[in-house]
Amino acid sequence: MYKIRTNRGEIFETHGETLLQVLQSHAIYLPASCGGKGICGRCKLRIVEGKSKTSSFFGISEDEKKLGYVLACQTYPESDIIIEVPEKLITVTERISAAKLWLVEKPFKDNPSLFEPLVKKVSLKIEPPTIENSKADFENIRQTLNKKISISRKLVSLLPEFLRKNKWQITVVLTEKEIIDFIEPDTKLYGVAVDIGTTTVAIALIDLEEGRVIDIASCYNSQISYGDDVITRIIYAVENKNGLDILRKCIVDDINALINTVFMKHRDGKILYVTISANTTMAHIFWGINPKYIREEPYTPVLNHYPVWNAAQAKLLIEPNAPVYTVSSIAGYVGGDIVAGILASQMYLQEEISLFIDIGTNGEVVIGNKQWLVTASTSAGPCFEGSGISCGMRATSGAIESFSYNKNSDSFKIKVIGDMPPSGICGSGMIDIVSELFSEGIIDQKGKLIKGFSQWIKEVNDEQRFIISENCYITQADIDNIIRAKAAIYAGISTLLEEVGISEKDISKVYIAGGFGEFINIKKALKIGMLPNLPENRFQFLGNTSLAGAILCTLSYQLRETAEEIADKMTYIDLSRSKKFMDEYISALFLPHTDWERFKELS
Amino acid sequence: MYKIRTNRGEIFETHGETLLQVLQSHAIYLPASCGGKGICGRCKLRIVEGKSKTSSFFGISEDEKKLGYVLACQTYPESDIIIEVPEKLITVTERISAAKLWLVEKPFKDNPSLFEPLVKKVSLKIEPPTIENSKADFENIRQTLNKKISISRKLVSLLPEFLRKNKWQITVVLTEKEIIDFIEPDTKLYGVAVDIGTTTVAIALIDLEEGRVIDIASCYNSQISYGDDVITRIIYAVENKNGLDILRKCIVDDINALINTVFMKHRDGKILYVTISANTTMAHIFWGINPKYIREEPYTPVLNHYPVWNAAQAKLLIEPNAPVYTVSSIAGYVGGDIVAGILASQMYLQEEISLFIDIGTNGEVVIGNKQWLVTASTSAGPCFEGSGISCGMRATSGAIESFSYNKNSDSFKIKVIGDMPPSGICGSGMIDIVSELFSEGIIDQKGKLIKGFSQWIKEVNDEQRFIISENCYITQADIDNIIRAKAAIYAGISTLLEEVGISEKDISKVYIAGGFGEFINIKKALKIGMLPNLPENRFQFLGNTSLAGAILCTLSYQLRETAEEIADKMTYIDLSRSKKFMDEYISALFLPHTDWERFKELS
Repeated sequence: MYKIRTNRGEIFETHGETLLQVLQSHAIYLPASCGGKGICGRCKLRIVEGKSKTSSFFGISEDEKKLGYVLACQTYPESDIIIEVPEKLITVTERISAAKLWLVEKPFKDNPSLFEPLVKKVSLKIEPPTIENSKADFENIRQTLNKKISISRKLVSLLPEFLRKNKWQITVVLTEKEIIDFIEPDTKLYGVAVDIGTTTVAIALIDLEEGRVIDIASCYNSQISYGDDVITRIIYAVENKNGLDILRKCIVDDINALINTVFMKHRDGKILYVTISANTTMAHIFWGINPKYIREEPYTPVLNHYPVWNAAQAKLLIEPNAPVYTVSSIAGYVGGDIVAGILASQMYLQEEISLFIDIGTNGEVVIGNKQWLVTASTSAGPCFEGSGISCGMRATSGAIESFSYNKNSDSFKIKVIGDMPPSGICGSGMIDIVSELFSEGIIDQKGKLIKGFSQWIKEVNDEQRFIISENCYITQADIDNIIRAKAAIYAGISTLLEEVGISEKDISKVYIAGGFGEFINIKKALKIGMLPNLPENRFQFLGNTSLAGAILCTLSYQLRETAEEIADKMTYIDLSRSKKFMDEYISALFLPHTDWERFKELS
Repeated sequence: MYKIRTNRGEIFETHGETLLQVLQSHAIYLPASCGGKGICGRCKLRIVEGKSKTSSFFGISEDEKKLGYVLACQTYPESDIIIEVPEKLITVTERISAAKLWLVEKPFKDNPSLFEPLVKKVSLKIEPPTIENSKADFENIRQTLNKKISISRKLVSLLPEFLRKNKWQITVVLTEKEIIDFIEPDTKLYGVAVDIGTTTVAIALIDLEEGRVIDIASCYNSQISYGDDVITRIIYAVENKNGLDILRKCIVDDINALINTVFMKHRDGKILYVTISANTTMAHIFWGINPKYIREEPYTPVLNHYPVWNAAQAKLLIEPNAPVYTVSSIAGYVGGDIVAGILASQMYLQEEISLFIDIGTNGEVVIGNKQWLVTASTSAGPCFEGSGISCGMRATSGAIESFSYNKNSDSFKIKVIGDMPPSGICGSGMIDIVSELFSEGIIDQKGKLIKGFSQWIKEVNDEQRFIISENCYITQADIDNIIRAKAAIYAGISTLLEEVGISEKDISKVYIAGGFGEFINIKKALKIGMLPNLPENRFQFLGNTSLAGAILCTLSYQLRETAEEIADKMTYIDLSRSKKFMDEYISALFLPHTDWERFKELS
């Protein structure tokens, strides 16, 4: 028995397991898309002190080796050791709060018959063939099912032994048109819903028989190393040899690692259905389709409606025949993630006009009701997802998620996810910080930190910083970044409203989506001029609606059809050449806005 | 320039080409499934004399190398040389006689609208996207086609460059539900119809635009090395490690070699559709599906109705997306070749009752009319296809196809295909020989050669032979073999007639199918008791109806549907346990039959 100490202060014991196993058993999930076989090179960590034995160094360079890097899945401690846990871990939410599930449960509460996944488990009692009534095995199944169904060459070749071994009582997995697997009767059917964001990837493991979300896991999109936003990713894919393949491998490996992590405890079943919800570029890259022309006017995707291909073609390490459905996109800059979001928000069912805002690396906006839907996209940047900000992080344990400042005492209070020492700031925390510092006059209308107005402002490397803790601060550049992001979002909303000839006042509901964690402080977001100035009770924060919509499509074939209808109905308006948008954006680069009239209730 | 002399006496010149190229240019086609790249090892031949340079010996053993074997595609003569051309060549019929095409042209003469291949070439003028009317490339095509069509992941990824390179005017290849290729406007569309027999494989190259059969090619099924009939092949597949894979590779390589040979001169197009017509076991092996249970009571195939898989899955070296349709089978011992045969015979359209007999390695029999069809199968063995007989060969150049004997002068006349010296005897020749020798009393009713009744009877190795030429003869064992085959066919017919309660006299037409070449001498076949004793004018020889039916399915989607209906309608009767069949078989082991009553008009 040896002790393992992490750089974060935890102490674990090992009794002969690999480092990967020890960390997993304490819910620290390193990415391992190969499932711990030492062949993906992704569970890299550094041993700071102590002895250990490592059986393979796949994917670790000589330089890294000298620094102590090993593959966690191939390493066994041989003394007490100290390790450095990588920053980019997989986050798994095992006990999902009711608040998070509200969105994905609502449609089925309203109409239980909607629960009907595309893949189904069917038990069949087959009549064995006789000389008098001889039938081919596959026709025998077709007749028992009373359906003209298809099957793959590989699967049908397994049929005769499977039938006989199971004495003509078998369980098959069916889609609408095809038998996709033979399973043991007690094998559970799982589905996976995937949200591929430019910055963050999230998946939900779903029990397809009980219609229940089991675990949710997320991590950063590894493509971040190749650029922060979709444009730089497209450039990378186009201008580098194998660029597209490299980016594709990043996201496929991420998803495989997430699946491995959540599926570890569910080896009682098979994953037989996948829904992909992603922005247009991410969906193209996921499928290995060149996104080149999305970047060039008139911003043309290769396809918006994806045929249902399968897991083998997607390179997902699950049942190769499992269908992989991709939620339809609208245009080059409004993807299936937004269609999924509208599905989850249910605004497509309502008589009144709603506004939907998805604040991710792109900021997409949708206005409409049950009759019509209009959408546009602005480039917000990844700051609200914790990327491109000095101490930014996703809304996971250790993230500052709220902040309040008291000018009189020049002191502040923070709330950290998981009630632990802060290790970074997530999107909602950033909005709070900028909003509070502006309200209390610590930053001016242009967002500049005013030197001397707080003891927490320090100059480091010629730049002002507001210091929150030993390792958490926000710099002038960070604030400028946040203001540009909020300006893009606000300008998108106001331009789109004008385009469709609607005033803010006509909006009865504003749905906010994005990876902000459990919540966003609407009042504070209003104060910085990020959102239209409406009564607070009209706003509702929905969380990750892209994932929620993907879950709905996985649980319900009808809702998947509805998603297609939403995609067909939605009209895209291109703001990229709109003078109006540029004017709005420039005006919104102030706190809250150059046009005080619009925010007069606030002031 | 060097001279190449073959063991058959031909002399060719070479000017730097490979041996394979020289032989090809003189219409001697060695199998070369890799197309002459030196990686299939199938174009092996022996250099008897002379110098040559060989760049690769792939697939040639050290022993063979010592004997002078080389790969023709990798060998360049460096002096005048003498080569030994292998016996098993590919036969290509380039100018197909009208007689042969009659069957496949008839349905379209009766109803020209039947000509409608499943794959079509469609030229599209696509509206380029604009900012005002932006569409994804694939949706743009869907809208232009006005059809909700599918596409493979790989193909769609080629779409954007193809569209732009061709300035938005493109030509696509469509099936009912999918775009399977993008082509240049002048690329011709070809289809291939394949007949996989247990002994012989034949293909037809078809111009899908003009609806015309271009070339027909055939060769022996290389699986012959692993057994003469389907039963021994199944045993090989089941009992040997990789047995199924080995047999599959044989037939797939054969088909690829045939395609390569006929397609050599048609590089102006692409092969985008394939129809497979085969007996049940051959179809299973072609698709890599274990035929194990076809051999075990109750003789259950894995499937009779095959989903349409594609060329990549079939391992055919043509466009990977090309659909490969397999004609539906009826039972373990009545396959798609018989369904194709019925389709080609048109007996399914007639009011009167017809009898259809396909004399291949299996002898299948069908009785019926437009209302009903009943079928059974007997094991005839491969002798009529030239296999398992001392001097047997297929009905190709050099084969004795007819024989007549004059007792008075103890002399005989032969007709050889291609009017050349005989190199073997094909099925129709064998029937003639046995029939003539029996009529003239050279063999007795049991089929025994009567020593001393002809100068041509010689004893070699304790066995009687009838000598026809220096290298052509027929042995006592050969005659026994032929009698067993004719007995199985006759017993199959008479048992089936009895099963359906019909007498010979009720049959208005007898269609004979099989690889006999251009014809079969009905009178002589009647004399040995191979066929029911009916007036000669009720018989019609149709040739290879399996290939003809496959051609029809390739040319017409509607006829493919008709084939499916024929398969659904046909009732299979199993003769394997029928006492009646065994009695009939034993009685038929005499010439013409033990029951002289049945053949009284003949005697």
